[in-house]
Amino acid sequence: MERVSAASDALREHLSRVELVDHHVHGRWAADGDAARLAAALNEADPDPVTAAASGWETQLGVAVRARCAPLLDLPRHASPSEYCARRAVLGEGEVSRRFLSAAGVSTWLVDTGFHAGLTDPDDLATLGGSVAHEVVRLEEVAEQAAAAPGDYADEFVEILHRRTGAAVATKSVLAYRGGFGGDLSDPPERLVALAAERWRAAGGTRLTDRVLLRFGLHRALDVGLPLQFHVGFGDRDARLSQTDPLLLDEFLREAGDVPIMLLHCYPWERQAGYLAQAFPSVHLDGGLSIHHLGARSGPFVGRLLEMAPFTKLLYSSDGCGPAEFHFLGATLWRDGMASVLAGFVDADEWSLDDALRVADLVAHGNARRVYRL
Amino acid sequence: MERVSAASDALREHLSRVELVDHHVHGRWAADGDAARLAAALNEADPDPVTAAASGWETQLGVAVRARCAPLLDLPRHASPSEYCARRAVLGEGEVSRRFLSAAGVSTWLVDTGFHAGLTDPDDLATLGGSVAHEVVRLEEVAEQAAAAPGDYADEFVEILHRRTGAAVATKSVLAYRGGFGGDLSDPPERLVALAAERWRAAGGTRLTDRVLLRFGLHRALDVGLPLQFHVGFGDRDARLSQTDPLLLDEFLREAGDVPIMLLHCYPWERQAGYLAQAFPSVHLDGGLSIHHLGARSGPFVGRLLEMAPFTKLLYSSDGCGPAEFHFLGATLWRDGMASVLAGFVDADEWSLDDALRVADLVAHGNARRVYRL
Amino acid sequence: MERVSAASDALREHLSRVELVDHHVHGRWAADGDAARLAAALNEADPDPVTAAASGWETQLGVAVRARCAPLLDLPRHASPSEYCARRAVLGEGEVSRRFLSAAGVSTWLVDTGFHAGLTDPDDLATLGGSVAHEVVRLEEVAEQAAAAPGDYADEFVEILHRRTGAAVATKSVLAYRGGFGGDLSDPPERLVALAAERWRAAGGTRLTDRVLLRFGLHRALDVGLPLQFHVGFGDRDARLSQTDPLLLDEFLREAGDVPIMLLHCYPWERQAGYLAQAFPSVHLDGGLSIHHLGARSGPFVGRLLEMAPFTKLLYSSDGCGPAEFHFLGATLWRDGMASVLAGFVDADEWSLDDALRVADLVAHGNARRVYRL
Repeated sequence: MERVSAASDALREHLSRVELVDHHVHGRWAADGDAARLAAALNEADPDPVTAAASGWETQLGVAVRARCAPLLDLPRHASPSEYCARRAVLGEGEVSRRFLSAAGVSTWLVDTGFHAGLTDPDDLATLGGSVAHEVVRLEEVAEQAAAAPGDYADEFVEILHRRTGAAVATKSVLAYRGGFGGDLSDPPERLVALAAERWRAAGGTRLTDRVLLRFGLHRALDVGLPLQFHVGFGDRDARLSQTDPLLLDEFLREAGDVPIMLLHCYPWERQAGYLAQAFPSVHLDGGLSIHHLGARSGPFVGRLLEMAPFTKLLYSSDGCGPAEFHFLGATLWRDGMASVLAGFVDADEWSLDDALRVADLVAHGNARRVYRL
Repeated sequence: MERVSAASDALREHLSRVELVDHHVHGRWAADGDAARLAAALNEADPDPVTAAASGWETQLGVAVRARCAPLLDLPRHASPSEYCARRAVLGEGEVSRRFLSAAGVSTWLVDTGFHAGLTDPDDLATLGGSVAHEVVRLEEVAEQAAAAPGDYADEFVEILHRRTGAAVATKSVLAYRGGFGGDLSDPPERLVALAAERWRAAGGTRLTDRVLLRFGLHRALDVGLPLQFHVGFGDRDARLSQTDPLLLDEFLREAGDVPIMLLHCYPWERQAGYLAQAFPSVHLDGGLSIHHLGARSGPFVGRLLEMAPFTKLLYSSDGCGPAEFHFLGATLWRDGMASVLAGFVDADEWSLDDALRVADLVAHGNARRVYRL
Repeated sequence: MERVSAASDALREHLSRVELVDHHVHGRWAADGDAARLAAALNEADPDPVTAAASGWETQLGVAVRARCAPLLDLPRHASPSEYCARRAVLGEGEVSRRFLSAAGVSTWLVDTGFHAGLTDPDDLATLGGSVAHEVVRLEEVAEQAAAAPGDYADEFVEILHRRTGAAVATKSVLAYRGGFGGDLSDPPERLVALAAERWRAAGGTRLTDRVLLRFGLHRALDVGLPLQFHVGFGDRDARLSQTDPLLLDEFLREAGDVPIMLLHCYPWERQAGYLAQAFPSVHLDGGLSIHHLGARSGPFVGRLLEMAPFTKLLYSSDGCGPAEFHFLGATLWRDGMASVLAGFVDADEWSLDDALRVADLVAHGNARRVYRL
């Protein structure tokens, strides 16, 4: 029993302070807001702020915020929603954010800047978190910029993409939200791209859903060669969830060569994603977003990530977006989940303690440093 | 350790006596039967009574009946199948049913009366269970009644549906068994309904599988506005299981507005169902049927139900049908499963004890009372 | 607590020595090889030896080899990969294999001889393992032999199949790797078979992917009536994993009558496979291959196999192929996983100890003896 406790303590201690690279995250809320805004943010899948807010606190995420975030706002664990919101209002968004971002223990934030309404920029995360930040360029935003530019769409897209990725570490696609992964994802012929761009520009050039232009963007991202992130699985109902099963990316992965492909979130298809990570040298995955939404159920999910994926293919992210609670919750739940799962392996003598510590470091930061060349 | 044990004890005590609304259940066997009938009932998926009986006792459900039901028949836990059947024969179906129905601790039964061969009616459950019962109207039975009526099919359907639902609390669809959820589920044009009805009536008007008429029934149920229950996932092989994935209901849910949609059973797609319950304000789910078939493995399943679904969207049901053992097993396994899962959250200090007690009450009866306006 | 420990000890003791029938396995490596060969074998899904080797040791399987296999080579548990490979080289493939095969505790090997490059034959397993071996005939290999034969393809296929199965216990299909389970699997008309055979022979008659000929082979195997094994789920990326979901076999199973159908590996669709085993009297399943690749995560997988499948439908296999470590690892991980899962049931008093021992024996060897008439 001594040995068992010792391994568990060592892992908990190590995980509690291991440096994290949060390889997929968004800005935090830039301005103060009311209690309804926070309640709505606790339901990811329902995009209607009224109904989302109604169910927000009665979720694993809502309970996790009250349990794990309240103490950082000087409240008792399990404070009520109204106490929590009142305290949040007193402190203000800036102070709240400063506390959570610094408590996350993140050294490097890789920030998807493609969704930014009301959110801060990468520099803000770096400043408040005492850390550094790099940009991840969203392909569908580049498409909108190309649609708004005066020249040939394809030329403009390539030029903007190269300019923006020159200072970035990755690209990102929300294809999952724009029709999903099913169907042809090959590089479309030039003529079709021109026709589709003309049609889209005529229609206003916003919220790209044209499959030809989405495919065009993916293949230009492959040309750039930076790691390409995909939203996979759990998200809001703009996605048809059945179309976000990563196995539907199979043909694309065969075409993608050695450009690193990063599968994000993955719930409830984390086992399918793990298989792809073993089958394709280019494929990596994380459990961001899913982890904080699973709250008290996140530990078993972290365990499922440690199945078929080689340990060199797993990364950490929070996918925090809006309330800085999520940037912190992703980190603290992942730390505890990993410590618990790994301690189980070591206590059963299936893994050595050194194995567990090495894999913890790989997932926390080692793999991200290698893949993103940080 | 004191605190931990205290929470666990409090939860087990609370769950052991919390009032249940069994929001989806059928009648119990009306007459005595032989051992082969019981053995066949232990295999849900194989509809052939001979082969089902052959494998019946060698299942989690069979072992659970011997472990948890035997003591209520004055037998030792883990009695053999032959001892169990002999004792059952001595007591008779009525006394056996009285014992199990009263031991279930159910205050209200919502009874699907659409499948009733050899089963008792709602009043019987209420009488034996010391409780009240309400009817759930099966849409496919209404369709058969409309086919047998003299007038225009659509008019007859609407009239029968309104008459029957006037005294009912919900409607139910077994679309899962009649082709499944894939394909167009929109409201069909009047002319197509008339043609399909003519064809079906000419063919005898039994066991509706015509997609046009199935769709017609669903949309008339939406017009009525009572909660609409769907069989989802696990069931017998009349269903093609791949066509019962609730994600295939996606488009229908977008059309269904605010009529409560109740996803029943859900195994092995409980995570997909939980996502839908978060994404759509109208969607609710339960784990009925699956729970007693999982027996000693039902605890982890109950845990998986407590993931993405808001806690206001989860309900209890047994889906007991035939042997009153199942009306009881659903309840006792759910009570213990919930107690164990919630105690895990509280012992880890991820949930407060008050959180756990509140959520237990919501799932046991609170959500059902709200949704069905009981 | 006494009782609990006693049950757990009794189960661990029983499982540690229970005789196993390994109902699906391949030969072991026939000759010495280098460290890169072993590293590549640790990644099942990536068929590229270079990239597979790069990630091989950083997997659950890699860690499991170091933990559980090292002591049989006189190394400490958790030896490093380089220590492990060095010791293996000193002992040589023959001595390594002898140690692992005899330690597996297998009385009977049912050997798929359809993939044999560099592997030993069934007699070798029997000799080194102190046991007996029978052949499983791969249908796609019979097809290649028929293509190479001089006569009418269909006639040659039937003649070779009958000749080879005369001394065999089962047939096996790798349809999962040749387009998968989706689409029509009915018995094709004679004329189409002749045309397809002509085309395939003209193209060289290797690596059968023609759907008509694959279907033809399956139905001729049904005619023979021996148990028919299917690779299901997890495997290398020659398969499109989405096309290996066993639910896609639904129509074929309805046609297959009472010929035993054996679903192999099944990850990540073990729950779907379990449902099929309950729904269809002919369907059986195992968790071979998946168990050793899951390593420290194999216990929960073994638990998931004990859900909807009747206990008379579950079998043991290793699917060991190449390094004899896998023939042993499958056995030792299954033994410990079953002991742990069953002890959980017994300790909770949901199962009696007799139930657990009986089911352990059924899965270890009883079901295999019955189905294969050993």
